[in-house]
Amino acid sequence: MSAFDRATAVRRRASTSTYDVDLDGGWSIGGRPNGGYLLAVIARAATDAAQREHPLAVSGHFLRPPVGGPAEVRTEVVKAGRTVATVRATLWQDERACLDVLVTAGQLPDADADHVGTPMPAMPAPDECRSRGDTPFRVELLDHVDVRLDPATVPTPDNAGAPVVRGWMALGDGSVADALALLLAVDVAPPTVFRLGLVGWAPTVELSALLRAVPAPGWLAFEAEASLVAGGWFDENATVWDSSGRVVAQARQLALVGRP
Amino acid sequence: MSAFDRATAVRRRASTSTYDVDLDGGWSIGGRPNGGYLLAVIARAATDAAQREHPLAVSGHFLRPPVGGPAEVRTEVVKAGRTVATVRATLWQDERACLDVLVTAGQLPDADADHVGTPMPAMPAPDECRSRGDTPFRVELLDHVDVRLDPATVPTPDNAGAPVVRGWMALGDGSVADALALLLAVDVAPPTVFRLGLVGWAPTVELSALLRAVPAPGWLAFEAEASLVAGGWFDENATVWDSSGRVVAQARQLALVGRP
Repeated sequence: MSAFDRATAVRRRASTSTYDVDLDGGWSIGGRPNGGYLLAVIARAATDAAQREHPLAVSGHFLRPPVGGPAEVRTEVVKAGRTVATVRATLWQDERACLDVLVTAGQLPDADADHVGTPMPAMPAPDECRSRGDTPFRVELLDHVDVRLDPATVPTPDNAGAPVVRGWMALGDGSVADALALLLAVDVAPPTVFRLGLVGWAPTVELSALLRAVPAPGWLAFEAEASLVAGGWFDENATVWDSSGRVVAQARQLALVGRP
Repeated sequence: MSAFDRATAVRRRASTSTYDVDLDGGWSIGGRPNGGYLLAVIARAATDAAQREHPLAVSGHFLRPPVGGPAEVRTEVVKAGRTVATVRATLWQDERACLDVLVTAGQLPDADADHVGTPMPAMPAPDECRSRGDTPFRVELLDHVDVRLDPATVPTPDNAGAPVVRGWMALGDGSVADALALLLAVDVAPPTVFRLGLVGWAPTVELSALLRAVPAPGWLAFEAEASLVAGGWFDENATVWDSSGRVVAQARQLALVGRP
């Protein structure tokens, strides 16, 4: 069992649609569990509730940041169809809803692609990239997830530029990233607006992800980019490719520009 | 009152959080109300329930296609915060849930942008574009919405190519498209996979949209593009710009490739 499997484990309460979970504070950024990690926990409960193999579309609206420790995921299967099932899943902690999610679950295709339109960007190999840990922020998550940033896009003060961050991700214990781990990958880049000098805690308000294939073993590549930063809001569009070069996940989030 | 306002009107039942609506079959494609139109109806109810001015993030998971006629939107304000409120809103018809939606609502910014990263693509002016109606499909929606397609991307059999469709949208009665009408704009392109020869009814399974600004009066420009078509599934990423060239909406949907 990988550290990721342990940290995202869910236990269904007998005769209910509620799952007990232990949020692992080690998968946090600045003391708050990472959004992608939380979505993975919730999607695991939702796919179990729906008795489907994979989440296909995951839409999370962030209400309040939870902390590490016990929590629960309350699920409701809204529709169980032939191809997909849709589940509403809400993360609760201390009787407060923290994250409300809709999950459409089913079976990821393993067919050859009919069309591939977004090639993996050219960037240096993982060993030639910078660890995300080389930043002024304490990122507990990096004890468990190996994140390497393309030096050209590292969001440090001496590297201002367009709000794009590219890099690689792997699980820190060497286990293979599965479909659920793609939810980590779509939210693992530092906020792209750091490259505009807008550095600070940048809370995610909404994140919607599509998972497209079970990734091939090896490093995952990611690219995150903001299209519009205005009035304190920014979007971040993330694409993830597996080691075969195939798009395996896509996501867009709405977030607030942080205050230093 | 514009035809769009009338077609998306909602009436709150006294002392409840349920809204009665009349789905207008005129805003359909092949007899099924358009997904963007349905999201506009539901988002109108959700923003009213939350007492906020605009939807900011709208995540719709499509369960069953409704038909034109009476329906209801059941809402639940999940959290009302200082900056935003989050609402779950579900469209019901004949005691069946048709579309489950999470809406985060608040106030769209009207500030100047700090960063604009996705310029409007170059394309011919609306008068030099082709009406979407010039296709073999009966699209009732086009009686109410004026959709012009860049001739280079019209999805006709003699124009196969990459799955990209660009064009312009305006409300048919000449009224100004407001923020809610952006939900129409993100879903108004014909399926991009038509350009790959994959022509047929292509149902949306999930569509998540971000609204970014109240659009300036005038034509809205849109571009939709699929990144990956595999195993019968495709994504479609849509960007909408207003007449000032500003990005005003972004969306991604997951859909099934249609069968002829």
